[in-house]
Parts: sequence; structure tokens; C-alpha cells
Amino acid sequence: MGDAAHGIDGFGRLAILAEGDFGVLTSKTAACVIRYAPERVACVIDSTKAGASVEDVLGFGGRIPVVAGIEEALACGPDALLIGIAPRGGALPDEWREILLEAIAGGLNVISGLHHVLAEDEEISRAAGAAGVRIWDVRVPKVPRAVASGSLRRKTGKVILTVGSDCRTGKMTVAFEVARDLGRRGVAAEFVPTGQTGIMLAGWGEAVDRVPGDFMSAVTEALTTEALERADVAVVEGQGALIHPAYSAVALGIMHGCCPDAMILCHQPTRTGIPGYDVAIPPLGDLIEMHEKVAGLVHPSRVIAVAVNTFDMDGDDAEREAARIEESTGLPVTDVIRWGCGRIVRVVEDLL
Amino acid sequence: MGDAAHGIDGFGRLAILAEGDFGVLTSKTAACVIRYAPERVACVIDSTKAGASVEDVLGFGGRIPVVAGIEEALACGPDALLIGIAPRGGALPDEWREILLEAIAGGLNVISGLHHVLAEDEEISRAAGAAGVRIWDVRVPKVPRAVASGSLRRKTGKVILTVGSDCRTGKMTVAFEVARDLGRRGVAAEFVPTGQTGIMLAGWGEAVDRVPGDFMSAVTEALTTEALERADVAVVEGQGALIHPAYSAVALGIMHGCCPDAMILCHQPTRTGIPGYDVAIPPLGDLIEMHEKVAGLVHPSRVIAVAVNTFDMDGDDAEREAARIEESTGLPVTDVIRWGCGRIVRVVEDLL
Repeated sequence: MGDAAHGIDGFGRLAILAEGDFGVLTSKTAACVIRYAPERVACVIDSTKAGASVEDVLGFGGRIPVVAGIEEALACGPDALLIGIAPRGGALPDEWREILLEAIAGGLNVISGLHHVLAEDEEISRAAGAAGVRIWDVRVPKVPRAVASGSLRRKTGKVILTVGSDCRTGKMTVAFEVARDLGRRGVAAEFVPTGQTGIMLAGWGEAVDRVPGDFMSAVTEALTTEALERADVAVVEGQGALIHPAYSAVALGIMHGCCPDAMILCHQPTRTGIPGYDVAIPPLGDLIEMHEKVAGLVHPSRVIAVAVNTFDMDGDDAEREAARIEESTGLPVTDVIRWGCGRIVRVVEDLL
Repeated sequence: MGDAAHGIDGFGRLAILAEGDFGVLTSKTAACVIRYAPERVACVIDSTKAGASVEDVLGFGGRIPVVAGIEEALACGPDALLIGIAPRGGALPDEWREILLEAIAGGLNVISGLHHVLAEDEEISRAAGAAGVRIWDVRVPKVPRAVASGSLRRKTGKVILTVGSDCRTGKMTVAFEVARDLGRRGVAAEFVPTGQTGIMLAGWGEAVDRVPGDFMSAVTEALTTEALERADVAVVEGQGALIHPAYSAVALGIMHGCCPDAMILCHQPTRTGIPGYDVAIPPLGDLIEMHEKVAGLVHPSRVIAVAVNTFDMDGDDAEREAARIEESTGLPVTDVIRWGCGRIVRVVEDLL
């Protein structure tokens, strides 16, 4: 875990594995690393899209090539393989095992956010030892020593939390962008990573979804406290969603752990329900009220903006939808990638 | 973990460690094991109460002696030491290490629900190996393979969940008693243990608070599904409390994992806030509404009864308080230990 100290910066150029699922949402770790550190990316591996450029697939990322396998990837001169996709449950698909072993044999270090700990996988760790390559298991948490103390209920400084109407709605991206924009405007703000991609980019943080239930709030509290020692505003990356049947607990552990003063609701307008669960996303007004009530059980909080993710809409539709949500919620609405996060940042500044 | 198959039944007679904190709430594992399996208990260790009987301290449990240390405990002829107290955060206090090593040297097997895994503690596991004794780390979960599927949203059979206005309000006891009473009345009901004490008593289950956040709902879903294969009603032991700054995530993971059709709210009337956190317990009506809303995000559910824990009130006060809560909530109210759980069981039967 010592590798976290420099994040992906310590790993040179990256081949990103997104086999079978390269896309903005389907391989969100890949997409975020490409968005925020394109100069580090040598190629993306997805045999189903080989020959395309990253720009063709994502709409950004330029001429970085998509290649069919490790052999082609090695020709692009990477130093490490980054697993850029989060399979359901975090297990290691059998077909990836071969790819990883091939990468290791080719001399690549490995960065993995899987729940399956590669350093504890006998075959893979033996291969890594033999090849002299490093493995960074991003998701393995430090062992916590205490449960949450509730100390952030009396903090100085402000905490902003991104929450979602579902998983994969842009919570990491929005937190990252808002913290960066606040910094550009002279506010001492720090992004607080709670998931694998954020940790890779920022070089610190903990994958809270991997932490035992009793300690999720404690770990979030410790990360947020650390950020507030360096900055006036901590912008915490939320995880999961309160309405998600599998991941709601992680969303709540982070919420009650960081005691947000304000929340930003992330939402993809084209999504009406949670894929695979037949759970409808409630009207945003109801969802906002629910978040404020549930957060308020521990610390008063309000939703101050809605961040829409309109990557799959054309410009006119996106604008119409943003206006509709602004009208119905009375809150500023933006797509931070499409229109920037000025409107959100101004509301945050009003809190200070 | 193979020891879970028989729970404490596989361990003969027990010396229960409750050093410095033996009491109904302060050592709730000790108190529950004594309540439900007194014939297995040789003695309780608490040097601050040595010389008393268990009945003197708890108000039940008869003449089981409280002794000062391992030497006196060994004179009572136990086969195992059960750690009957859950220190904050689950770590192993230094002063207990000596007690454990002494017990192991004395030939006692050890049953522990600490987060600190004794089998992975070098000094303790070496001592256990040398003495030829077994260690059962009750809290170590099986590694889950998948996240929650939401399958219980379409179950046959009914799921009842105990929830609390705080930790240590009687959620395990109420679930255990209700399942047992349903069984006596001819309803096929199964208690679903989600914490260390329930696992010790029932011989199966998982300590959900120890499970990584992403998998808490999955583990609860699997346990509940297993119970419904054997019974028509699963009575799930809740953990933590939705309003608790450190443990709310565990409460929610269980709630969304088991998809309860009905909930029983457990509450200690003399407690007005969460000790150590300066969080007030809201009026019960508000708390009930909040639980129904939050559970309803995934599956419709309602609170059908309030189980008060009146162990620290005299009979008249307890009756007055129960009547007041019944009046204000419109729900049946009982203390399952003091007055039995007939009123709750009848409401559950109405659901079938």
C-alpha cells in the first residue's frame, strides 16, 4: 500500500485493461484516468473495439489507441497495466487471469482496484515475484483502530459530499472537478478519495466499500479530518447510492462519517431506474428531501446543487433537461464536464 | 469457522469474561448467553464484582458465581473461555491479553467475537497451538462472492427485522424470542443471526458488521434466503441503528439486504440520546416514519410493534411508559423479557 503515496504517478505509462466493456460508464476507472491523466496512457485493451482510438469510443482522449491484447499493448511501451474496469462484486474473471499473467510476464507492474486481492492470489503473486514486478492493490484498506467518534459534527471548515441517484452517475468526477475549481479560485479545497479511481488519481484515500461495516464511517471521518487539516473545504467523493439495494450501506457510512454541510446530487437524466434491480429512481425532489433527512439524522445538511451527467444526450436535450431540473428543484444544475462547475462552485463559496 | 456449525454447544461448559463491565447492557454477549444457555455457564470473570452471583448482578441467572480471574475460574471446571464483552471497536485490550494467555495455558478453548482475529494474533495463536486448544473467531466472515441481487424483493415467506433507536436496545433478544415464540405457536420461523452473540447461540449466521461494506447486503440476503428455505418466517437480528454516527451503515446494509416486510423497533425508554455522541433519539413516531421511508427505498415495510427494554425501570414506571408509547404510536408495545412477546407474535401472525 506504500504505493498509494504517489498514486499512478509512480507507475510511468499505463496500458489500461477494459476488455469487452470500454466506455464512459462501463469502464469508469479507465475513462476517469484517461480524462485526468491522458499523458500517462499508452493504450487501452479491449479486443471488441481494437483499431479504434480512445476518442472514437469516449468522445475524448485523442489518439490513444485501443488494442486487442497484451502483445499489442506491449508494443505501445507501457510500464504498468491498470485494471480500468470494475466487474460486479470485484472478483477476478477467469479470462482476465490469463491477461494479467501475460502482462506480468511482459514486465508490467499492475495496478488493481479489484476486491480480489492480487497480492494474496497465489498464482499471480508468484508470477509477479518471478518477473520482479510490483502489484498495487488499491482497494486494500488499512486496518482501522477505532469506530467513528462523531468529531466532524463540530468541525471548523466545510465538508461537501457528492451523492447519487444511482451508482456510476459521476460522484467522483464531480468531487474532483469541484475541488480543482475551488482551488483555481483561491479557495483551499481538497478532494477526498473514497474509491479506487480517486485513490489512483490523488495518491491517497481509502476504498471505503472494502472496509468492514463497523469502520466505514470511521475511515471516512479520518480521511475528511486529514483533508481539513490541509484545507478549508473537503470535497468528499460519495459511493453507491442510498436507494441502491446492494450499495446503500456504503453510501450511508460515508455520509454519516464525513458529516457533510452540503451535498451535490449526481444524476444521469436518461436513467429512470437502477439497472438490474427494478428499483425506480424517485422524483429528484423526493430524493433530495430523503438525502437531507437521512444525513440530518447525524448532522444537518442540504443539497445545494444537482450535477447531471448528460454524456449520452445531445446538446439541446441536455440543456432542456437541466432547465427542467432547475425549475423543479430550485437548485443550480450543471454537467461539470459539458458546462464546467462554476455554478456549483459559486454556491459552495456562499457557504464559506 | 467450522465451529459455527454447533455454536457454543460444541464447547462444553463456559467461563465468561466480562472483566470490569459485567452487566445487562455493558456485557450484552455475556448476559444473552447466560439468559439463553445458563446450564452451560460455569462462572463469569469480573474482578470488580467477584463474590457476587450472576443473579445479583443481572437479576437473572441464579447462583452462577462471579470470580476474580482465570485461576478462580478454572476451579469451576470450565472447558472454554467465552469473551462476553464487546469493547468499542472490537480491539483486544492489553489487560485481556494476559487473561487469554492464562486461560489458554490452563487448557481452555476460546470463543471470541472481537474484531481482532485471535487466530491471526501471533502470540495467542502460538500459545493455542502449544496448549492444543481451539479458537473460534465468531466474527470472521466467509468471503462473499457476489453483491446483493435484490432477490428478496420477490420472496415467498415473510421477513421480520428488529431495528433500534440505538445500539444495545435488545434487537438480538427480541428477534430470538419472537422466532422462538412463533415456533411454539406452530409457525415455522427461523432466527437469523447477524452478530456474534446470535451466532454463538444459534450456531450459524454471519457477523455482518465485519463484512466489507459492498457485501453487507449480500451476506444478509444470503442468510435470510437460507432461513426462508427452512421456514415461513425469517426473524432477522438487526445491528446498530440508522441514527448512530458510527454504525448506521451496518443497520442499513442489513435492512436493504433482507427486505423486511415488517420491522420491530427496539427502544430503551430511559435513554434519550446516543451515549458518547450527543445525538438525541427523535420522538418514536418520527423514528418509525424514518425507518419505513428508508426501508421503503428498496422494499415496502412497516413498523408493526415497539419492543421496549425496561430492565432499568420498576414495574409501575415500565407499564406507564409502555402505555404512553402505545398511545403515541398506535402500535402494540411490550418488553419481551418482562411481559413476553405474545402481542408481537400475534401481529406477525396477522401478516401470514
